[in-house]
Amino acid sequence: MTCVEPTNVISIADLGCTTGPNTIIVMQTITEAIENQYYKTVQKLSAQQIPEFQVIFNDQVSNDFNTLFKRLPPNRNYFASGVPGSFHGRLFPKKTLHFVHSASTLHWLSRVPKEITDRSSSAFNKGRIHYINAPKEVQDAYAAQYRTDFENFLHARAQELVSNGLMALQIATVPDVILESDIHPARVYELLGSTLMEMTKEGRVSEEKVDSFNVPLFYSPAKNLKEILEKNESFSVEQMETLKVEEFYEAPNASNFVSMLRAFLGDLIEQHFGGGIVDELFDRFTHKVVEFPDIMNPKKLKLVMLFVIKCNN
Amino acid sequence: MTCVEPTNVISIADLGCTTGPNTIIVMQTITEAIENQYYKTVQKLSAQQIPEFQVIFNDQVSNDFNTLFKRLPPNRNYFASGVPGSFHGRLFPKKTLHFVHSASTLHWLSRVPKEITDRSSSAFNKGRIHYINAPKEVQDAYAAQYRTDFENFLHARAQELVSNGLMALQIATVPDVILESDIHPARVYELLGSTLMEMTKEGRVSEEKVDSFNVPLFYSPAKNLKEILEKNESFSVEQMETLKVEEFYEAPNASNFVSMLRAFLGDLIEQHFGGGIVDELFDRFTHKVVEFPDIMNPKKLKLVMLFVIKCNN
Repeated sequence: MTCVEPTNVISIADLGCTTGPNTIIVMQTITEAIENQYYKTVQKLSAQQIPEFQVIFNDQVSNDFNTLFKRLPPNRNYFASGVPGSFHGRLFPKKTLHFVHSASTLHWLSRVPKEITDRSSSAFNKGRIHYINAPKEVQDAYAAQYRTDFENFLHARAQELVSNGLMALQIATVPDVILESDIHPARVYELLGSTLMEMTKEGRVSEEKVDSFNVPLFYSPAKNLKEILEKNESFSVEQMETLKVEEFYEAPNASNFVSMLRAFLGDLIEQHFGGGIVDELFDRFTHKVVEFPDIMNPKKLKLVMLFVIKCNN
Repeated sequence: MTCVEPTNVISIADLGCTTGPNTIIVMQTITEAIENQYYKTVQKLSAQQIPEFQVIFNDQVSNDFNTLFKRLPPNRNYFASGVPGSFHGRLFPKKTLHFVHSASTLHWLSRVPKEITDRSSSAFNKGRIHYINAPKEVQDAYAAQYRTDFENFLHARAQELVSNGLMALQIATVPDVILESDIHPARVYELLGSTLMEMTKEGRVSEEKVDSFNVPLFYSPAKNLKEILEKNESFSVEQMETLKVEEFYEAPNASNFVSMLRAFLGDLIEQHFGGGIVDELFDRFTHKVVEFPDIMNPKKLKLVMLFVIKCNN
């Protein structure tokens, strides 16, 4: 059986796609852009040369792929498939991807760093659920986990991408210097943590439960991320750009803001604390957000950076 | 961007996979068999030559892929993906599959032939839900739809398979001659139809509803299927074998038998007749099965044929 067969397939993966419709819009945009470029470059295509797109939607095994599949447009210009699993490891055979897209996913850690919930460790994160305003050991543990995860991500993709394959990564980072007037994107977890701590004082939640809960998200300073990328020999940075949050993110009201947060954090909280406190927690938290609206002010949030990087293999 | 890249990927698709665990067992068996064969043939493999398996699970968009993905073994020897859509049309880019497996799926039609539910047609199937003991026009309409569907299936796969790619198809067919003592596998739908007709007499179901309902399944006589396959220029039959149903199918009890039938027909019936009658229908039907146990007797059911066919493109 021969496995080497010339094909005209362009494979594009969206990593951390969730259930759509965003991923569907993005994949449509990317395939059309490549198609246009293709036809501009190659003037006359024989039938055999016309490229076919394979679009691969990836997210965790727990993602609702059923909903995503039902949302796919019937007249799409690509073949669609879903791949379940963590992008911190291998997901695809070697040298089979041409383009990887991932937006607002890479600040998720593969896990909470172990020492953070270890009472005997100097990095034990008592009374908080995130690293903001935590001791340096906690911040370092988060940063180390982030580095490992990101390097694992790059290592896996380096094997899966063809030579000169591209990745467009939209990564939530923070500026190297955070001004007094800026809002760190992780401040929201500080506020959520303090809401939980209030509930421990009223006996609604046990302190142990709070001590063993941490949000597995890390906003790397942009320069640290650049450093990881530049050290990596498999990839080179082609383009790098800071997106202005205020240009694509309208200030929500407190209720919508909390709903968004609950959408991606609700399950995690429910798994850890049980369903009983979730409504109360987010109700109390909504009041805090109303009192401190800066936390959702896109003009103060310093957040996103876009990278386009190329596989050198 | 170059799309032609030598890889050592072996792509295997299971068409009509449902939710496992059967498909998982079968894919495991196939990948291991290929792996063994590979190592027997190629004595010394360099790291670059070690094949990687891409296993693609396909079924209709309505299939529960979430359940299937959760069932995938974590330590599998392949990369897994799910592809939603009908195998009567194109599902994959050209020349990207090496092996296609499909078991007990190809007797499903892409739709009920139109004329069957058309009151003005001579093929109108009044008072029945299948073609057994129906007028010749009904049987011919089913057979024509089957031929079209199967040819569409072959046409799509011929484009998707690499040269010398293989398909292993386990297709439910009937012997060319059905003896008095044999049970035609479609007899079960005759029995189900007569149960529905009893319910119309008691005013539980309207006659119109029964007349507009037909089961989209066809058991082709084996020789007709061979003829379609032999006429098709893209494929050649490598091997053909009749499986003896009694060797792998133990006679179930009536309740299990009806449960199995309900598992793959229940939704179709509920969509057409509404949920209200489904329990009653299958209760009544169970009584009929108890009265006529031959219908689930594997020694009398003449059913399955296995084809291994090769893509000549």
